[in-house]
Amino acid sequence: MITPDFSQDFINQYRVTDPASFKLADMETQTSHFAKGKEARAVSTSNAETIAELSHKLYGEAKRSLLIVLQGMDTSGKDGTTAAIFNRTPPLNVKVASFKAPSKEELSHDYLWRVHNVCPGKGDITVFNRSHYEDVLVVKVRNFAPANKVELRYEQINNFEKHLTENGTTVLKFMLHLSHEVQGVRLKERLIEPHKLWKFNPGDLEDRKLWPQFMDAYETMVKRTSTDHAPWHVIPSDSRSRRGAIISSIVRKTLQDMDPQYPDPGFKLEDFEI
Amino acid sequence: MITPDFSQDFINQYRVTDPASFKLADMETQTSHFAKGKEARAVSTSNAETIAELSHKLYGEAKRSLLIVLQGMDTSGKDGTTAAIFNRTPPLNVKVASFKAPSKEELSHDYLWRVHNVCPGKGDITVFNRSHYEDVLVVKVRNFAPANKVELRYEQINNFEKHLTENGTTVLKFMLHLSHEVQGVRLKERLIEPHKLWKFNPGDLEDRKLWPQFMDAYETMVKRTSTDHAPWHVIPSDSRSRRGAIISSIVRKTLQDMDPQYPDPGFKLEDFEI
Repeated sequence: MITPDFSQDFINQYRVTDPASFKLADMETQTSHFAKGKEARAVSTSNAETIAELSHKLYGEAKRSLLIVLQGMDTSGKDGTTAAIFNRTPPLNVKVASFKAPSKEELSHDYLWRVHNVCPGKGDITVFNRSHYEDVLVVKVRNFAPANKVELRYEQINNFEKHLTENGTTVLKFMLHLSHEVQGVRLKERLIEPHKLWKFNPGDLEDRKLWPQFMDAYETMVKRTSTDHAPWHVIPSDSRSRRGAIISSIVRKTLQDMDPQYPDPGFKLEDFEI
Repeated sequence: MITPDFSQDFINQYRVTDPASFKLADMETQTSHFAKGKEARAVSTSNAETIAELSHKLYGEAKRSLLIVLQGMDTSGKDGTTAAIFNRTPPLNVKVASFKAPSKEELSHDYLWRVHNVCPGKGDITVFNRSHYEDVLVVKVRNFAPANKVELRYEQINNFEKHLTENGTTVLKFMLHLSHEVQGVRLKERLIEPHKLWKFNPGDLEDRKLWPQFMDAYETMVKRTSTDHAPWHVIPSDSRSRRGAIISSIVRKTLQDMDPQYPDPGFKLEDFEI
């Protein structure tokens, strides 16, 4: 059993720091961290409480932003991860942006237009549930755009994210790395458990049939868009509780490193008559 | 000590059901509910956990919306109330919209334009931190618009909210009713406690000088815009913990009455090959 110490070493196990040599096949969908799910959940709760405090400081400081990008196959746990990170944080400055099939109006603009529109403002944290990376994932696998256009997007995205980071937004990207086998189990769960049935979408089975093509697209995405300013983290996601514990640990450490501070505008009690 | 039973009787103590005879002076800023703050906080936490479950069902159901309007003088606790209601709910479908002084573009439209734009979608809950009611409060007190234009707004707002409710949005409106004295204490707190200093705005003292005019405007607002479809609740707000317990109790009861259900799309495991 290894208890995470929220150190840079812990994060670096999941962070893609050498994208040139990155192979998705080298990355595990299971983790040896956290002997028991219970332990992982306790870590998540502790992280969520600290994240709530740090989020409030970021809100008060109102100078910088945090953008959390969640990408993964269906059932990899994008909603559950959002809950694990933020189920102790009031929604004052935390937003979720979900990207579905683009509307007609969105399609009349370039693919980053709708994304830029919902990036976090100063003091805010935004979670992208899916993101502009769909434009090099499903769009690539299903040929929704010509290959030569998709090819240009990796650099466009890197430049876009560089622009965000240079203007005060920290960008954290997580690929929720799930095995084909566990996806099958979870899809069946959705069909068996009444309170999960609403999440089942027959269309997800079409994507499941293209699993190898999607994994290729994910690998290329991580290789081409893991940058110093906005690296990818590839998170073992076959266990829900461990996935939540690892990601919330990385978010917590990132916020701690950002070290937000309530500002001191320099007012003094004696300067005012109340 | 009276423990709230989350019944309609409990809610009706705070709900304005007879607006014609409403007088703000009859409403207390303190409450006899909850002997101790600790008890009120325990009720809030219990409510917040239930609200998290019900919010998730509303999200899954994706048919109806909840709009929570928070109005009150500075330091009356709009942020703190949001936290009390939602500090166990992940931000998947809960948003906060804060209304500050309108931008040039917003001013080029009617005053409800920016408001309509951020109303909750199906399955969503939105908290308005301040709202369109500023257009009959600060705008009226400070004469930012002609009196005859403000006079028309009460009916316009009632019609707007009727439109929302007829189209699937439940509207809950809370006036955080604070005493002039406790506002003074809280403004001083902001100047004394380093982590609250950032919240102090010298401009708030200008509004404080106009307290009687603001109370008149609030009274007129409640009288004229408490409707069957969108009633006001006037909440004693001199105690933070009790304010949170009362409001979260009303939100909880409202969500319980809405009784959201995870939908059953009728899929069967045997219909699919996974």
